[in-house]
Amino acid sequence: MTTLLKIAVVHGPNLNLLGTREPSTYGRATLADIDRELVALGRQENTEVACAQANGEGELVALIQSLGATHDGLVLNPAAYTHTSVAIRDAVLAVGKPAVEVHLSNVHAREPFRHHSFLADIVVGRVMGFGAHSYRLGLLGLLAHLRGIGA
Amino acid sequence: MTTLLKIAVVHGPNLNLLGTREPSTYGRATLADIDRELVALGRQENTEVACAQANGEGELVALIQSLGATHDGLVLNPAAYTHTSVAIRDAVLAVGKPAVEVHLSNVHAREPFRHHSFLADIVVGRVMGFGAHSYRLGLLGLLAHLRGIGA
Amino acid sequence: MTTLLKIAVVHGPNLNLLGTREPSTYGRATLADIDRELVALGRQENTEVACAQANGEGELVALIQSLGATHDGLVLNPAAYTHTSVAIRDAVLAVGKPAVEVHLSNVHAREPFRHHSFLADIVVGRVMGFGAHSYRLGLLGLLAHLRGIGA
Amino acid sequence: MTTLLKIAVVHGPNLNLLGTREPSTYGRATLADIDRELVALGRQENTEVACAQANGEGELVALIQSLGATHDGLVLNPAAYTHTSVAIRDAVLAVGKPAVEVHLSNVHAREPFRHHSFLADIVVGRVMGFGAHSYRLGLLGLLAHLRGIGA
Amino acid sequence: MTTLLKIAVVHGPNLNLLGTREPSTYGRATLADIDRELVALGRQENTEVACAQANGEGELVALIQSLGATHDGLVLNPAAYTHTSVAIRDAVLAVGKPAVEVHLSNVHAREPFRHHSFLADIVVGRVMGFGAHSYRLGLLGLLAHLRGIGA
Amino acid sequence: MTTLLKIAVVHGPNLNLLGTREPSTYGRATLADIDRELVALGRQENTEVACAQANGEGELVALIQSLGATHDGLVLNPAAYTHTSVAIRDAVLAVGKPAVEVHLSNVHAREPFRHHSFLADIVVGRVMGFGAHSYRLGLLGLLAHLRGIGA
Amino acid sequence: MTTLLKIAVVHGPNLNLLGTREPSTYGRATLADIDRELVALGRQENTEVACAQANGEGELVALIQSLGATHDGLVLNPAAYTHTSVAIRDAVLAVGKPAVEVHLSNVHAREPFRHHSFLADIVVGRVMGFGAHSYRLGLLGLLAHLRGIGA
Amino acid sequence: MTTLLKIAVVHGPNLNLLGTREPSTYGRATLADIDRELVALGRQENTEVACAQANGEGELVALIQSLGATHDGLVLNPAAYTHTSVAIRDAVLAVGKPAVEVHLSNVHAREPFRHHSFLADIVVGRVMGFGAHSYRLGLLGLLAHLRGIGA
Amino acid sequence: MTTLLKIAVVHGPNLNLLGTREPSTYGRATLADIDRELVALGRQENTEVACAQANGEGELVALIQSLGATHDGLVLNPAAYTHTSVAIRDAVLAVGKPAVEVHLSNVHAREPFRHHSFLADIVVGRVMGFGAHSYRLGLLGLLAHLRGIGA
Amino acid sequence: MTTLLKIAVVHGPNLNLLGTREPSTYGRATLADIDRELVALGRQENTEVACAQANGEGELVALIQSLGATHDGLVLNPAAYTHTSVAIRDAVLAVGKPAVEVHLSNVHAREPFRHHSFLADIVVGRVMGFGAHSYRLGLLGLLAHLRGIGA
Amino acid sequence: MTTLLKIAVVHGPNLNLLGTREPSTYGRATLADIDRELVALGRQENTEVACAQANGEGELVALIQSLGATHDGLVLNPAAYTHTSVAIRDAVLAVGKPAVEVHLSNVHAREPFRHHSFLADIVVGRVMGFGAHSYRLGLLGLLAHLRGIGA
Amino acid sequence: MTTLLKIAVVHGPNLNLLGTREPSTYGRATLADIDRELVALGRQENTEVACAQANGEGELVALIQSLGATHDGLVLNPAAYTHTSVAIRDAVLAVGKPAVEVHLSNVHAREPFRHHSFLADIVVGRVMGFGAHSYRLGLLGLLAHLRGIGA
Repeated sequence: MTTLLKIAVVHGPNLNLLGTREPSTYGRATLADIDRELVALGRQENTEVACAQANGEGELVALIQSLGATHDGLVLNPAAYTHTSVAIRDAVLAVGKPAVEVHLSNVHAREPFRHHSFLADIVVGRVMGFGAHSYRLGLLGLLAHLRGIGA
Repeated sequence: MTTLLKIAVVHGPNLNLLGTREPSTYGRATLADIDRELVALGRQENTEVACAQANGEGELVALIQSLGATHDGLVLNPAAYTHTSVAIRDAVLAVGKPAVEVHLSNVHAREPFRHHSFLADIVVGRVMGFGAHSYRLGLLGLLAHLRGIGA
Repeated sequence: MTTLLKIAVVHGPNLNLLGTREPSTYGRATLADIDRELVALGRQENTEVACAQANGEGELVALIQSLGATHDGLVLNPAAYTHTSVAIRDAVLAVGKPAVEVHLSNVHAREPFRHHSFLADIVVGRVMGFGAHSYRLGLLGLLAHLRGIGA
Repeated sequence: MTTLLKIAVVHGPNLNLLGTREPSTYGRATLADIDRELVALGRQENTEVACAQANGEGELVALIQSLGATHDGLVLNPAAYTHTSVAIRDAVLAVGKPAVEVHLSNVHAREPFRHHSFLADIVVGRVMGFGAHSYRLGLLGLLAHLRGIGA
Repeated sequence: MTTLLKIAVVHGPNLNLLGTREPSTYGRATLADIDRELVALGRQENTEVACAQANGEGELVALIQSLGATHDGLVLNPAAYTHTSVAIRDAVLAVGKPAVEVHLSNVHAREPFRHHSFLADIVVGRVMGFGAHSYRLGLLGLLAHLRGIGA
Repeated sequence: MTTLLKIAVVHGPNLNLLGTREPSTYGRATLADIDRELVALGRQENTEVACAQANGEGELVALIQSLGATHDGLVLNPAAYTHTSVAIRDAVLAVGKPAVEVHLSNVHAREPFRHHSFLADIVVGRVMGFGAHSYRLGLLGLLAHLRGIGA
Repeated sequence: MTTLLKIAVVHGPNLNLLGTREPSTYGRATLADIDRELVALGRQENTEVACAQANGEGELVALIQSLGATHDGLVLNPAAYTHTSVAIRDAVLAVGKPAVEVHLSNVHAREPFRHHSFLADIVVGRVMGFGAHSYRLGLLGLLAHLRGIGA
Repeated sequence: MTTLLKIAVVHGPNLNLLGTREPSTYGRATLADIDRELVALGRQENTEVACAQANGEGELVALIQSLGATHDGLVLNPAAYTHTSVAIRDAVLAVGKPAVEVHLSNVHAREPFRHHSFLADIVVGRVMGFGAHSYRLGLLGLLAHLRGIGA
Repeated sequence: MTTLLKIAVVHGPNLNLLGTREPSTYGRATLADIDRELVALGRQENTEVACAQANGEGELVALIQSLGATHDGLVLNPAAYTHTSVAIRDAVLAVGKPAVEVHLSNVHAREPFRHHSFLADIVVGRVMGFGAHSYRLGLLGLLAHLRGIGA
Repeated sequence: MTTLLKIAVVHGPNLNLLGTREPSTYGRATLADIDRELVALGRQENTEVACAQANGEGELVALIQSLGATHDGLVLNPAAYTHTSVAIRDAVLAVGKPAVEVHLSNVHAREPFRHHSFLADIVVGRVMGFGAHSYRLGLLGLLAHLRGIGA
Repeated sequence: MTTLLKIAVVHGPNLNLLGTREPSTYGRATLADIDRELVALGRQENTEVACAQANGEGELVALIQSLGATHDGLVLNPAAYTHTSVAIRDAVLAVGKPAVEVHLSNVHAREPFRHHSFLADIVVGRVMGFGAHSYRLGLLGLLAHLRGIGA
Repeated sequence: MTTLLKIAVVHGPNLNLLGTREPSTYGRATLADIDRELVALGRQENTEVACAQANGEGELVALIQSLGATHDGLVLNPAAYTHTSVAIRDAVLAVGKPAVEVHLSNVHAREPFRHHSFLADIVVGRVMGFGAHSYRLGLLGLLAHLRGIGA
């Protein structure tokens, strides 16, 4: 049987509006729906999943510092801060835990400033474009990475 | 019960060497191993999976044209051509089927010329960095997209 | 008689220092002075004007989310975040209300990094360079837009 | 009572077609409508407003030279020449009168070559995106500037 | 039998010197020769062809406004203004008639600043490099477009 | 009477799908239709026209080498390779025959990476945007060039 | 004897982790250690040193506003915000006190995005690369500047 | 004795204001003063000097065409059009007479957009920064060039 | 005596035309001449030399894979693909054998797009500009590298 | 007690003029003053300090080679060569001794070409903007580095 | 009568070869010829002219330092160092005397790297393209500047 | 028998340290070793080889001027000046002798600023990456070029 793992999922700014905001781009599931499904998926995979959201860059830095210290890995969707935050990059480097970057939409099919990510080169992997499913795939990918499957 | 789907997986240049070539970057699974696992995963998901590899850009264009005509979606790892081929982009646009772009390694952690993809803005989604597992996640993401799950 | 409208005015970082900070660039009116005048102008125009300021990007995102939900339009002076914040852009897109971008100074006569605005292409219009008067003109422009005058 | 001021409004190329040309971008008011409203607004503000239009860069240079010599300020919509004319910039610098730049549409929501303005850094302020209302706001802003209100 | 069409041909600056100016680059035909041949070709194609030349950007704007209002399409060789004029682009957009861009020489084999065209993305098509023959091919292409041939 | 000429028409990748692929961009004529019309047009112009298509860059190099050796000129639509292939440019330079570059669509009205052509500066002329008619105009232009008409 | 001076030291995001985070890059001293040494050094130099840290950009803006109002100068290590924050630059400009920028590591030996600083051109001086010693040197440099030594 | 030469001096936009406009940048001599001195200097050098000014790009093209046809060389100060006009470049190329580019001010000590000149690479030489004296030096340089002195 | 070595020489597109194609740039030796001389030089140096040419990128990838597996080093002249092929770079990385890049002409004296090489940073060394002699020097350099001479 | 260390201070071009040249930018101390103070500071810190200046790049290379061979570290102010010299960088790399880069002025508050340094990424640390005091801070920083203090 | 002035003329690298080196670009006069003519011209203008040449950047810095200290102005042709030397720029700034930049050839008609000058924005004026005559015009311009003629 | 040739080998800055400096990058041979081997190789090839080294740009210019005047060709390793010196380029152009550029290391596998060479487009050929062997290959290549072998 697989080891028990603890994974933190961290959501960035405006994701608290999910389900109401621009549904054609981001889908209809609310953040609570997504978190519930990730916890359920975690349970199937012998994994504890904790979820948190914040709109502030400094609050996200603090969340990554504290959750990173107590979890085995991070699933991160920094939303807008993906493209502008060195502070979040530094927090991920500081906690030193494997992280996966996920996006609901395919950021490369949107404005050019969304094509650059300050996390892209320091994460294990990236998943984007599958709506709420991106999180689930990202979680599965991170678990496979942590358990050394499919490398 | 879910509808039967047919998915084509197309591998680009040098992936025939997988398992022998730069294992620290690309892992130890051979292409045959990966194809076998994708077919098996497809069977679990009520999906027929066909796989093909080519080293030539024109051959990959031809593969996408013919497989695209007879399948419901494409999982593409164009390898080096990701960064240089407009012809493969045009083939994907021409067949008009949903496609997912996958990479074994995290291309953003490598040379700058690997950060650009000529497919990125026309695919449903992208998965990278999870080794052979990237294909499996990409296949699951494409199936979810085609079946309208988790959007 | 014109419909009653509700407009939120949101001020960004360091604008709390207005009147004391670099008066040659920003003028001598305090933020309280400006807010008072905007409320008075709103009253003349059959409009309720609510004003708020914050120094934090995440706090501004939250202000735009909450005020955007309850008002008909936004007059925004994101100050420094104009040039660096995708999160504020996303908040404006998420609330889906018409917004006007205003600046006290003419940002194009200042440092090059102030020439780019992450809001410029998603707002109705922009007004800059008229000191505190920029807000009043921006409010009038937004009202004309909402009431379909002068289009 | 406020001093009598004289303001010249100068319209650039193709604005003679206003009301007929691309109404979805530029609105339905004709140039004559706009000029009439500006004269009326001027009268309310104790200001004489003179309006002129030309399609040629050299003609606009000449208009700015002659009107600039006899007026207290300029409201300029150089249209296409905004983005390409150093000669008009030089004419404005040469006459040495305060100028305001206005645009019917929000140029930042259009083609990238419209994002640069050769006037932006030498005008008092800029107003854009409010259709014909941009002129009225620009005129009010210029008057406030000339009379030292709201600085 | 094909419908009668009216096409305006507009020549830009310095083309009045054709036949005398740099014959190795531009050939020996004069502008009058070219216009005569285009009128003749038009007659064969049941088309009235009107030709005009100007050295001034504003004059060309005016020509396109007036000829565009009374003709079914435009064959444009804006010469030097191809690379610098937004005003001519705006005139073509304003009149809303299909236009074809032609050049005597192959502009891509000349100085880099001639590689960009402010018309290229708003015309039906482009023909260049065939000397005076470029006009004839451009006229034929425009007629085919207007009559829906060979689309 | 004009000399008999031999012209080769070479089509690049994905053009074998013509008529089925993205008809709104590329029209409804198949490649066989186009080739048939070009042969017919050739016959009217006392010219033998040979046509060939390939999806591979190397195959196109080989076609240009062999057809270039036995024909008087080339009409080339390298499609996607226009923007990425130095090898095709080198093949055209190597065979030393006059060539004309044609495109069905107006590449300047599409993605920025389609604005650059590795052939543009070494061909006699370019024709684009007229659908299948581009080939016919390109052939006429090449014949005029070879026969010294309209230079 | 030298005048008593008051200096505020402001630390940016993730510096709260100092001593635990990436010691090979940032050294083993904790932030408390550094603050203690700076206070001690201040005492030797007849200077009161106050220290503060925050992870949020808005909180740092507020700290600089309040500490700047009550101190004679600022020693700033904005960490990640060095490279992304215009708001902190504006806060430093607003308080109008001499500031020194310090970094533990040599930012020019790290990722390219760390080579740009939004503070560099508005501070008195910069010190970097000496680990915790950078702060001490920065403090000494600021005191020399304030007391007019060695200019 | 030296041959009689005929030289045309052509002044660009806004130079008609010389002596009144920005005297700190451009000096106090009027254009009539400069022309008079150039004619006098020409007389000393056995040279007829004709001078003309225009504000319009098209008018300058026409002046260069007509004066170029009847004179041995050109002294050009295209002012603002130096930086934006391909049409004037083409007119100079078309008339095929040696030309010298002069500027009153040192354009390299001004805004970056004044550092580029569309004439620079096709003129014999350039003189700038000496106020009205630039014209005299330019005329002397052109005469030396035409008479083969000092090559 | 030196160890026996096996070296593969791989020629890229259009090199099959050598001796006939642009002799002023590439010289008069045919590819067969060059291969013969390299085999002869190899014999003198106790080295087996195998030579192969292909026009297709995929074929070159396959050649490098197979020859790389059975030889001690590679002398590569990828011709046009030097500047465009990531796939060939990946093949060289995959086979993991020392390689030398050679060019007949000095690519830096030609078009700018020939100045970049996708192989340059992964080869042992580069030789260019000596015509067919470049191959011989490249072979000697590779042998010296493999035998540890002159390091 | 601390070990005896030997440090070389190397001054670049025009620093021989110090005290006379642009005192508002560089201060009033002469180079001899600075050297004297550094020697005195060295004595306090149990360190022998040797100072040298040269105007030539090659002479500075030679100084760094010879002083680098006999000293424990280098304090370098290459002045203008900071921004242009690879040779000095190579000399520092060649001697392999820890070096500190110092500047009298804050180079980031000056012309853009002074923002780049060819030494920045290979030195231990950088100090700038404190006038002659920059040298003293740089020396202290280098000593702390060499003695392992405050890392 | 005009005041006696002292002017230093400083020639940069390779100008010692003048008259022998690339005469088609630089003319046939030797440096001694030019110096002789400048001294003669100086005599006519009541000016002492001293000339010096050096190939080294540091030697030129020293020449400008010493000659600048004892002369009223500088005529500089830094040749290749024009484009690469900040040290010479700094020397000119340091001596604080008016300088004129001259070039034999028109640097804008040559390689792109010759279009930039590190002196251009700090000199009074520039003269180029008139061969040896450039020096004479530069000297006359500098004298006019120093004597306040023609400003 | 081959003609006697005279070749000068010129080494740039820091190469005097060869054998001691960064041996992992540059190898263990000293400059004297290399020169000895080149002289010996020259003797085998009926060629007199003279070698010289300098650290100064001006000294290298002088060496190239004097050696270039008396030798048939140049083998140049300008080391750091490769990337920064226009003066050395000009010296090579001035002496008009064929030159070959050599580098010990593969400069394309090092820092980006080493990828550009101011000599690359004016030399016969380039050899790099083979350590001291690069010189020998460069000498052989130059002799083949001068004797017309293998062109």
